[in-house]
Amino acid sequence: MPFKERNIKLVLEYDGTRYSGWQLQKNAPTVQGVVEESLRRLLDHPVRVTGGSRTDSGVHALGQVASFRTTTRLSPDQIRRGLNALLPADVAAREAAEAPAEFNARRSAKGKLYAYRILNREERSAFERGYAWHLREPLDLEAMRRAGRDFLGRHDFSAFRASSCQAKDPVRVVRRLEVKAPGDDRIAIEIEGTAFLQHMARTMVGTLVEIGQGKRPVESVAGLLESGDRTLAGPTAPAQGLYLVRIFYEEAR
Amino acid sequence: MPFKERNIKLVLEYDGTRYSGWQLQKNAPTVQGVVEESLRRLLDHPVRVTGGSRTDSGVHALGQVASFRTTTRLSPDQIRRGLNALLPADVAAREAAEAPAEFNARRSAKGKLYAYRILNREERSAFERGYAWHLREPLDLEAMRRAGRDFLGRHDFSAFRASSCQAKDPVRVVRRLEVKAPGDDRIAIEIEGTAFLQHMARTMVGTLVEIGQGKRPVESVAGLLESGDRTLAGPTAPAQGLYLVRIFYEEAR
Repeated sequence: MPFKERNIKLVLEYDGTRYSGWQLQKNAPTVQGVVEESLRRLLDHPVRVTGGSRTDSGVHALGQVASFRTTTRLSPDQIRRGLNALLPADVAAREAAEAPAEFNARRSAKGKLYAYRILNREERSAFERGYAWHLREPLDLEAMRRAGRDFLGRHDFSAFRASSCQAKDPVRVVRRLEVKAPGDDRIAIEIEGTAFLQHMARTMVGTLVEIGQGKRPVESVAGLLESGDRTLAGPTAPAQGLYLVRIFYEEAR
Repeated sequence: MPFKERNIKLVLEYDGTRYSGWQLQKNAPTVQGVVEESLRRLLDHPVRVTGGSRTDSGVHALGQVASFRTTTRLSPDQIRRGLNALLPADVAAREAAEAPAEFNARRSAKGKLYAYRILNREERSAFERGYAWHLREPLDLEAMRRAGRDFLGRHDFSAFRASSCQAKDPVRVVRRLEVKAPGDDRIAIEIEGTAFLQHMARTMVGTLVEIGQGKRPVESVAGLLESGDRTLAGPTAPAQGLYLVRIFYEEAR
């Protein structure tokens, strides 16, 4: 008699520095790759993992969600502990839980929260080199906050996506955008939305930073959204400042 | 006519992970070594740097202070920028300033502030592996706070120093000890004192942790200090959780 097939939900944290992003690639290390390999060793059968977000190369995660099917009899706690024993040190399993059969980390996602960290001081940091965008000139946070409001709501984000983005529908909803200053020289831009186009969070940040630097008018965001023209928006902020903080599902809100 | 000799004070930040501590060694990478080498290249003459604290292998610094003599005509700002261009990415110069001729980073020091970071949760972290002590079982912070008070003041710290410690006088003054909980699962123990014996901060932390784990009575610290016996105190907490935060000099207090 075959074992019952179960659906497991994982919450993962990773330092994206040495990975070519989440999604499996043949000749480059990816987070999906090391998670699948560790699960295969733990569960003794091949595993295909679905990630809630396809984070780009170098992007970090505090709360990536992944789901997979298995016939193992290990408990979720045993899966979490076993994974943490097998995964490389820069990937950690925060949670493992039984999920309903229909749960899929990607398709069931109702929203995502990203945070973008900036180190805003003249001198570089010995600790933050791979974990924040270092910008020497002081940013005008008030200008960034005012401009940020124009991103809220439902918009066509064509001007804020990578040319390689494959989503058919460029319309997305941004629910919340906050520019926080958690420390002297630290800035964190939190962006919560239903879903994100490729490079959307980083292009929004790149544009807000140009506004904070006075290179672009505070009231320019609405026109950029209107234009749908990627060449008019700001640069794509570097990957190392971006953190996938959380993915929301039905039960969470 | 020779240039005037100047005395320069540096404030340095470093990630101690890949260094065998501050102090110069022949066959191992040290922070003093990379700072002296970068200064030599920048100033075009050999430089001997004095560090305010001889941090151990793997210990980090947010505010190490170093002083050196030079005949350069570069301004302090040029020295800071030049250093940041030449130093490896895990060492950064936060400040450079002209110092009085008699200033010596080590001998002029009036006090030091260390912070010890603990990650107190079951799962390991993908980010904190080299930057905190990971302790799975919840610590009793209130017990640690009460025990910590017994360290305050002037004591013979023989029970809290490495067997290799070369200081002649084991008496030190602890001015402040605080057990903070800056986040959900983060603990920071801040210890400020006039000076520290070798491994003193880490042995104090190792002892407080055993008290927080209930392995050792809250009121045991006074007896340990009294005993002068290193074998009775707790373990030396791992280096990667310790940060030299600041060194105090006359002008600062």
